Amino acid sequence: MTITITAFEKSPDGGKGLARDTRVRWALEEVGEPYTVRLLSFATMKEPAHLALHPFGQIPTYEEGDLVLFETGAIVLHIAQRHAGLLPDDANARARAIAWMFAAVNTVEPPILDLVNARLFEREKPWGEARLPLVEGRVRGRLKQLSARLKDAEWLDGAFSAGDLMMASVLLRLRASGILDEFPNLAAYVARGEARPAYKRAFAAQLAINAG
Amino acid sequence: MTITITAFEKSPDGGKGLARDTRVRWALEEVGEPYTVRLLSFATMKEPAHLALHPFGQIPTYEEGDLVLFETGAIVLHIAQRHAGLLPDDANARARAIAWMFAAVNTVEPPILDLVNARLFEREKPWGEARLPLVEGRVRGRLKQLSARLKDAEWLDGAFSAGDLMMASVLLRLRASGILDEFPNLAAYVARGEARPAYKRAFAAQLAINAG
Repeated sequence: MTITITAFEKSPDGGKGLARDTRVRWALEEVGEPYTVRLLSFATMKEPAHLALHPFGQIPTYEEGDLVLFETGAIVLHIAQRHAGLLPDDANARARAIAWMFAAVNTVEPPILDLVNARLFEREKPWGEARLPLVEGRVRGRLKQLSARLKDAEWLDGAFSAGDLMMASVLLRLRASGILDEFPNLAAYVARGEARPAYKRAFAAQLAINAG
Repeated sequence: MTITITAFEKSPDGGKGLARDTRVRWALEEVGEPYTVRLLSFATMKEPAHLALHPFGQIPTYEEGDLVLFETGAIVLHIAQRHAGLLPDDANARARAIAWMFAAVNTVEPPILDLVNARLFEREKPWGEARLPLVEGRVRGRLKQLSARLKDAEWLDGAFSAGDLMMASVLLRLRASGILDEFPNLAAYVARGEARPAYKRAFAAQLAINAG
């Protein structure tokens, strides 16, 4: 069955790979599943036809036969559960890899999103500069804990998994801030993710659309 | 095998059921699995013994034989996948229910967490009052979309699922702000969650610890 995902017609990051379709592309590349992409403008994303697929009017969505999914984490988990390559076979290790997926989106990403909001959308507010250290402090607090857990391991729990895919993708959003580089083992972890051939293909595919 | 979860020795909310162990208790009550609770002080949560179970030094954790899990979403999903009652049998419906779990923690909860932070931890900052309308606006934006999707349905996608358990739990955090009541169908949705016998047992169990 053909897999169709949605992506920005023109990503706000200009092709840095930070839009969430990159995470889904990466997962599909890891498991070797071909896919097609339907590009959406910001206006189209808020129209009823897309809201029927994605109640929050965002990208990516995932369509495969009768199945329509939204939420990047859910899409990556669906791909990982249906195809080999993104989750360990052992049941307990599998549950732990899924825990890292949730940790990425619910524990590590929220303070990072707050920082993105603070830098992009609140910079010109009266509190723009004054509030930044507080927000950056929250991000550093999380990264310190994550760094302490990872130590010098290659991946978070054994072999590369969907948990690493999500965590590395979340951390990538931090690179421009310089905060990621304050934690050398996390910076190296993200670089290992970026060095994977599947990531490179995913990155190139989104860049081809956004570099035009 | 005995299931052991961790919870606050004294929850910061004084027993309102907003600490995340309530979500896990609720899931265990829905599927009828008994469990024991190990209570932790704030100091104990940051000690190496607990950090070995939970890299971010939080509650809840989940222990069952050799398996140790952290992250509420992952724990609830693990329970839902192992026991009947929280996920539909149909594969596509199951994937959609999991999508709502991720939507709860990655799309709806982040702006709510930001509002909680703004009210609890940034109220006395110079920007405390001035910034609140912006943060509340983001929460309302998400709720408007969620409300439009739910319409007058009982649950988000067919029968009650782990997706509803997570979404109702996330929305509960908003009650004190008054914002939830601006969306009558969402307020009624949360009330339906709270009316479930399994939720009532979970709530009573955490209250028994925190009311002392």
